[in-house]
Amino acid sequence: MAPKALAVIAGVGPGTKEQGASIARRFAKEYSVVVLSRNPENFDPVVQEINSSGGQAIGISTDVADAKSVNSAFDEIAKKFPDSPLAATIFNSGGGFARKPFLELTEKEFSLGFEAQAKGAFYIAQRALPLFLEAKEKLTHPPTLIFTGATASVKGSANFAAFATGKFALRALAQSLAREFGPQGIHVSHAIIDGVIDIPRTKAWVFEHEDAKLSPDAIADSYWHLHTQPRTTFAFELDLRPYIEKW
Amino acid sequence: MAPKALAVIAGVGPGTKEQGASIARRFAKEYSVVVLSRNPENFDPVVQEINSSGGQAIGISTDVADAKSVNSAFDEIAKKFPDSPLAATIFNSGGGFARKPFLELTEKEFSLGFEAQAKGAFYIAQRALPLFLEAKEKLTHPPTLIFTGATASVKGSANFAAFATGKFALRALAQSLAREFGPQGIHVSHAIIDGVIDIPRTKAWVFEHEDAKLSPDAIADSYWHLHTQPRTTFAFELDLRPYIEKW
Amino acid sequence: MAPKALAVIAGVGPGTKEQGASIARRFAKEYSVVVLSRNPENFDPVVQEINSSGGQAIGISTDVADAKSVNSAFDEIAKKFPDSPLAATIFNSGGGFARKPFLELTEKEFSLGFEAQAKGAFYIAQRALPLFLEAKEKLTHPPTLIFTGATASVKGSANFAAFATGKFALRALAQSLAREFGPQGIHVSHAIIDGVIDIPRTKAWVFEHEDAKLSPDAIADSYWHLHTQPRTTFAFELDLRPYIEKW
Amino acid sequence: MAPKALAVIAGVGPGTKEQGASIARRFAKEYSVVVLSRNPENFDPVVQEINSSGGQAIGISTDVADAKSVNSAFDEIAKKFPDSPLAATIFNSGGGFARKPFLELTEKEFSLGFEAQAKGAFYIAQRALPLFLEAKEKLTHPPTLIFTGATASVKGSANFAAFATGKFALRALAQSLAREFGPQGIHVSHAIIDGVIDIPRTKAWVFEHEDAKLSPDAIADSYWHLHTQPRTTFAFELDLRPYIEKW
Repeated sequence: MAPKALAVIAGVGPGTKEQGASIARRFAKEYSVVVLSRNPENFDPVVQEINSSGGQAIGISTDVADAKSVNSAFDEIAKKFPDSPLAATIFNSGGGFARKPFLELTEKEFSLGFEAQAKGAFYIAQRALPLFLEAKEKLTHPPTLIFTGATASVKGSANFAAFATGKFALRALAQSLAREFGPQGIHVSHAIIDGVIDIPRTKAWVFEHEDAKLSPDAIADSYWHLHTQPRTTFAFELDLRPYIEKW
Repeated sequence: MAPKALAVIAGVGPGTKEQGASIARRFAKEYSVVVLSRNPENFDPVVQEINSSGGQAIGISTDVADAKSVNSAFDEIAKKFPDSPLAATIFNSGGGFARKPFLELTEKEFSLGFEAQAKGAFYIAQRALPLFLEAKEKLTHPPTLIFTGATASVKGSANFAAFATGKFALRALAQSLAREFGPQGIHVSHAIIDGVIDIPRTKAWVFEHEDAKLSPDAIADSYWHLHTQPRTTFAFELDLRPYIEKW
Repeated sequence: MAPKALAVIAGVGPGTKEQGASIARRFAKEYSVVVLSRNPENFDPVVQEINSSGGQAIGISTDVADAKSVNSAFDEIAKKFPDSPLAATIFNSGGGFARKPFLELTEKEFSLGFEAQAKGAFYIAQRALPLFLEAKEKLTHPPTLIFTGATASVKGSANFAAFATGKFALRALAQSLAREFGPQGIHVSHAIIDGVIDIPRTKAWVFEHEDAKLSPDAIADSYWHLHTQPRTTFAFELDLRPYIEKW
Repeated sequence: MAPKALAVIAGVGPGTKEQGASIARRFAKEYSVVVLSRNPENFDPVVQEINSSGGQAIGISTDVADAKSVNSAFDEIAKKFPDSPLAATIFNSGGGFARKPFLELTEKEFSLGFEAQAKGAFYIAQRALPLFLEAKEKLTHPPTLIFTGATASVKGSANFAAFATGKFALRALAQSLAREFGPQGIHVSHAIIDGVIDIPRTKAWVFEHEDAKLSPDAIADSYWHLHTQPRTTFAFELDLRPYIEKW
């Protein structure tokens, strides 16, 4: 029996672990799943859950904003899954967020937006894309690289200089990769998550309507849908928001 | 047994009938389907196909750019399906296309872009939205109104003044309805079809790559995906194009 | 002495007459000016003011949303200024504004957005562009066609279906003309006026800051600046808003 | 007599020195001008020219991508012009350009886009903005911070991952600053230079039309126009391109 294909979910941090877990769960229905996070406590629960319900998952402690760390993670993936083609990689980092008046922003805080978003995505993409090119003939669906964006990907709001520069840069990277690798049969997408995701961390943010927050599972379903599109019909960008959101 | 919910596919013309047929086929897996087209030869084949394979479909001769015609179509729908909640309406018109130097464009040709696109969509939306508001508690998925856009929805190219004004106007309408009816639980979406669709009419357009055209079935799958999104996680806009497309 | 070149300011209605007057005043410093408005009371004051301060101006009663009326206005201009090359035309209509829940919008109200904006601009452009092509060698600055947009040109807000479809359509037309006639040396521009203009009609709208409204004279200065750009360096679009505006 | 106000032109490198020189010349008609460049040969000619024709200019060797260097430049400016209010700062860097297949891009090349564009702009803005806030009551025109963008500011093309991430990030920063400091009376603008600028370095790029390149002087005139806008009527963004450019 041919080994299952692989999905790598990267950038699963304190604020994005539930979203990452939903994506991992969704892709684990068809693929072996690797979850990358600096802190194992961000991936341990979902990895256990997937393995105990008949799927296959591992977590690797990884700092996506660090080249060495990303490279050693992909080396480990190659060792653990030597015959599994890479089918999907999701870059889901929430790092680099800072909301501050511009003149109070330190150089380090400002750069962190770029480091955690665009540079992390750069490291991940440089490792994933060659694997995609190698794998593409062996897969059911075109290999897919999805970047998670935010409102700040298309709007530089006051006090968001750090995060918006990172998210704009990430979107530029996504566009550039879509235009370079699309014609090679790789599906590159960018999702604009425009609203608050319904996770434990946002419990305290109460809205007038109880279902005013994005569902991590529904986001994961949309990512899976993107992945299943044939190469004749690739979506590059979609914007997801709660029905009640002002935009 | 409760009657099946309904989907209405409007704007199925000579250039869009295969796309409309794919959408009708996809939604017919779950719903009774009504296809609106001026000329019955644009809907007869798909209506027969759906009915003979266990689904339920009717066609109604309708000019979507004519208020009376649209109103009489919806009156007929109400008579034929008195107990079926309206679950989805797709506005898929390709009308109003004209590619001409601006100074050769007649007033009539120029206006046709708006008439066939924005005004047709206006008539359809004014009838569909009240039905959605009425139906929304009875449906599995939030009622969904999808508008089909094109490259000309976001770019006014030289010689495309008529079609681009129509498609820009249609997108404005879609945005306005999404912002007004989203908070009422209605899902309004706009799809930018950026490329050539693979249908008999475009057979002669040969590209270097054989799969360089959009698949009508894959577009239909994306429309169905939009329809199944919960209201916590609505996509407003997605852009669909062949992997090989320059953009 | 060669006759002065001409500027035509079209679409000067009850809500836009002061803005139109500012533009007329600015262009009258260099050109003979023609102001088009349905109602002479919208142009009489500025025409008198310009003539009595050493400039040259006429007004012509014109309904820009009516082909015959626009054509007879341009015929009259040709008679009155047989030797004056056309240097600039500003389309500044505020017509078609309606703010209403979508389901209360009549077909007529909905269409008025398109009629007053895109179709008016179509009539004006079809008459102005041939004159520009004829005049371009005789002018100091490239002949210039400027369309006045609004927030609704790029955002379809709830309850703005009629006005936004008109303004989106106008922007599509502007883009299409810029791409077709730019290479022929005609400067086509679109200005997004994003905020309230400081005119008598908006006196009652009081903001926290007293200078929270756009200055009609400053808008006119920007239009004049666009007009003076050489063809090596055309701006297509600029967005103008008060410093205090949320966007 | 009150000392003349100051304009600082930053980011004048090998590929942008003529553009920087045009801006310096234009602002020197009203202000004392400071030109920042790593290499004095990029500013010496224009500084001499301005001083010998009655204006006042100095150059300071500065690496805009280095915090210390930017800080020492602004310290020197404060010493040389202790009583001159800062009226305008132009960030005009062309650094970080790399056109390469993504998989050949080194981490350093990729980061350079961000370093030279967004981070350079961050350093400059952090020094200029407090001076603007201090100076604003003493100036004829609102203090103005202009960022020079490019096609890559709004489009991530294939092989442009490094430059586009830098330019997107710069635009995010510009938007964020405009929204934060606009309400404080500071004019922040972003100009999208969409085409080839006519400078010695691009002499070899021959087009069908001889005036197919942007004029550095005309760009400078548009920057000056932005600077003279009153705060009631700020333009945030304008796109400049040759009449013959495809877009």
